[in-house]
Amino acid sequence: MKRTTRWQRNCLSLLLGGLLAGQAIAGQPPLDADASDPTVMGWMQGFPPAADKQVNGNNYLLFPRTRWSFSHIRELLPTANVGRGAGAVSSLPDARRDDINDLQFQLADGSNMTWAQSLAANYTDGIVVLHRGQVVYEHYFGALQAERPHMAFSVTKSFIGTLAAMLIAEGTLDEQALVSSYVPELKDSGFGNTTVRQVMDMTTAIRYSETYSDPTAEIWEYSRAGNLIPRPADYAGATSLYGFLQKVQPEGQHGEVFAYKTVNSDVLAWIVQRVTGSSFAELLQQRIWSRLGAEQDAYIVVDQVGTQFAGGGLNASLRDMARFGEALRNNGRFNGQQIIPEAVVADIRNGGDPAKFAAAGYATLPNWSYRNMWWVSNNAHGVFAARGIHGQTIYVDPKAEMVIARFASNPVAANGANDPISLPAYSALAQFLMRQPQ
Amino acid sequence: MKRTTRWQRNCLSLLLGGLLAGQAIAGQPPLDADASDPTVMGWMQGFPPAADKQVNGNNYLLFPRTRWSFSHIRELLPTANVGRGAGAVSSLPDARRDDINDLQFQLADGSNMTWAQSLAANYTDGIVVLHRGQVVYEHYFGALQAERPHMAFSVTKSFIGTLAAMLIAEGTLDEQALVSSYVPELKDSGFGNTTVRQVMDMTTAIRYSETYSDPTAEIWEYSRAGNLIPRPADYAGATSLYGFLQKVQPEGQHGEVFAYKTVNSDVLAWIVQRVTGSSFAELLQQRIWSRLGAEQDAYIVVDQVGTQFAGGGLNASLRDMARFGEALRNNGRFNGQQIIPEAVVADIRNGGDPAKFAAAGYATLPNWSYRNMWWVSNNAHGVFAARGIHGQTIYVDPKAEMVIARFASNPVAANGANDPISLPAYSALAQFLMRQPQ
Repeated sequence: MKRTTRWQRNCLSLLLGGLLAGQAIAGQPPLDADASDPTVMGWMQGFPPAADKQVNGNNYLLFPRTRWSFSHIRELLPTANVGRGAGAVSSLPDARRDDINDLQFQLADGSNMTWAQSLAANYTDGIVVLHRGQVVYEHYFGALQAERPHMAFSVTKSFIGTLAAMLIAEGTLDEQALVSSYVPELKDSGFGNTTVRQVMDMTTAIRYSETYSDPTAEIWEYSRAGNLIPRPADYAGATSLYGFLQKVQPEGQHGEVFAYKTVNSDVLAWIVQRVTGSSFAELLQQRIWSRLGAEQDAYIVVDQVGTQFAGGGLNASLRDMARFGEALRNNGRFNGQQIIPEAVVADIRNGGDPAKFAAAGYATLPNWSYRNMWWVSNNAHGVFAARGIHGQTIYVDPKAEMVIARFASNPVAANGANDPISLPAYSALAQFLMRQPQ
Repeated sequence: MKRTTRWQRNCLSLLLGGLLAGQAIAGQPPLDADASDPTVMGWMQGFPPAADKQVNGNNYLLFPRTRWSFSHIRELLPTANVGRGAGAVSSLPDARRDDINDLQFQLADGSNMTWAQSLAANYTDGIVVLHRGQVVYEHYFGALQAERPHMAFSVTKSFIGTLAAMLIAEGTLDEQALVSSYVPELKDSGFGNTTVRQVMDMTTAIRYSETYSDPTAEIWEYSRAGNLIPRPADYAGATSLYGFLQKVQPEGQHGEVFAYKTVNSDVLAWIVQRVTGSSFAELLQQRIWSRLGAEQDAYIVVDQVGTQFAGGGLNASLRDMARFGEALRNNGRFNGQQIIPEAVVADIRNGGDPAKFAAAGYATLPNWSYRNMWWVSNNAHGVFAARGIHGQTIYVDPKAEMVIARFASNPVAANGANDPISLPAYSALAQFLMRQPQ
């Protein structure tokens, strides 16, 4: 399908700029949450929408259109379904309390902010908080609704990481085996002599930049290969996700440091799919989604040869994301059954090596680590999280018996822009719920 | 998104040829149902599928790939969801009987065929038969499964026609009003001085050919406008469904004869959406799908400005299609509620003017008519049907208390190729069920 007739290179620059800084016009700060509310902006209103109100495959990653598009990805891209199955919806008891809105917490600079203010500051599209399995807070903003799937971006990685860890626990997958033993097509790439474990913990050493601010970073060809962003007329790069993966070059010594590179997740998905003979969506449906008692089907973005984007293509409803978080909090048990083996959850929660993680230099995540494609705080509460650009998260605080699922459309992609507000807010809410249980 | 880099005009010719005749190689008959089974063909098997086993936006309408693609449209095109809602699934009691397979019936040439043979002869992907509301027959073939939506093609039209008739019954829509009074953008097109009623019964007089065998027929630009088929590199036609509709020219006198032209359905959808302020998918979800107690969400293909293709873009599960047919059979009542006003169903069943219909020259449909985008037999059983190319149907036989929902991927688009077998088979099954009720 040709959706890029009018696509030009200058448009691509605009797209990259928008993704990077969330600043459509040089020097101007982005619209705030209220001003960028997609209903106020009028995206895709009317039949047909006015030309300047249209969101399409060429502009959907440009803020403020993102505030609409992240809740309407399937209307923009081909997708594969992840069915909830025919089972009953699992219970999420309603124990909402409005006093959370006024909860005050302190930022690093000493200033105070309320919980409600923090949601706007981070362009929250929706948030669900569970305490001891009950919904204590649930709000939607802008284009998002309870039943509507939202793009989870790299939260997707934690699903493929969990599935892979489950296969290892069952003996179906050998974490010490070389990637090339499962996927011979990757033998001559930078992944050829990595182990499955190194891929799962992103300690592979490959030439691949995820720096959104750099237009020459490999993430952009990868996005074009996967049809996530349009290709220039003279595009000569890879035309599928797996085509790109085979071109990735080695750079350094595997296993030494953590380096966050989305391609690892799709290599892992390639391995998992090759080993099981089932697609990511099929595995997710069979082993997790249908067992959670999810309310909604989820879906995964696919490239033009049908590859499901495990690095960031999952879309799901927020309440179902919270269910998955709650399953993890309960050591894999949810909806009356053991969905994820307890040992797998323990392995996630134990985390990876903080020393290897430190090399990546995440200022907002001191002493964290990365394991099975989960971010692990190693703090006193044992917090661990799935995280995706623009503010997506599943945040599990075992000590506070709290799970937060949040979708957002922060104009800045990198979570370094969310964390200075979100992490103190989540921590304050955990303290609050521990002090004042219902 | 650019999915047509390698697309060339000769490929388009091949596509048209394939759609027309179902004959990929000149002079050769198409593969039969067994030989074209998509599992046997191996479409989209493996990670990634081999190059010659891939189905994508450039080739998905080419038989035999259609046998896979019609059950996987959302993996190829952007789509809008039609939610089933949170209600309970409505009951379809199981009363399956295998003796139907051996039911013999006679074709026009005097030869005999069994029911089971008829399914293969017409490349059936799935079929559900209800008798008095119970499932007496249900089978899936190839890529289709009970829970998987399949492309309904022009069966979609009967949904927008029913919704429009409901709005007329409520007084929200005036069937005698001019189209241009609702959609001023169409004032200077061939639809400018047609009435809503003429659009609903396809008695508009416009220059638009739906002859699939003619590569210059307007259906092809319409399909390109809607992004259903790729656009050549030098494409200068309309880039959205509604863009095309505004270009349609008048030809003759409105209201005189029935002429089957898909554009009428999208004009009707434009009117309905403009009047209600809701999209086709939203209306279908609110007024029909969520009330049917559907098992699955459905979805509708969208063009690049988000227009939902009311002429043929609905995808749904077969059992849910059967539920809709059963609601019509029961004069609009199903799942414990009046979903469609009785008067609307009566108006459909009364049909249109057979004299106007006769002018269209459908050899397989003597004395039929067309009303509210339903095909009405006017026969002794009061049969009426929704019909889509390649063999899609919802067939309602009130006298026999029978509803048939069928999806197929017949290599020939026009239903003139299905009817000589399907209509006698359906008629024979009706007689059989009347003779031998359970």
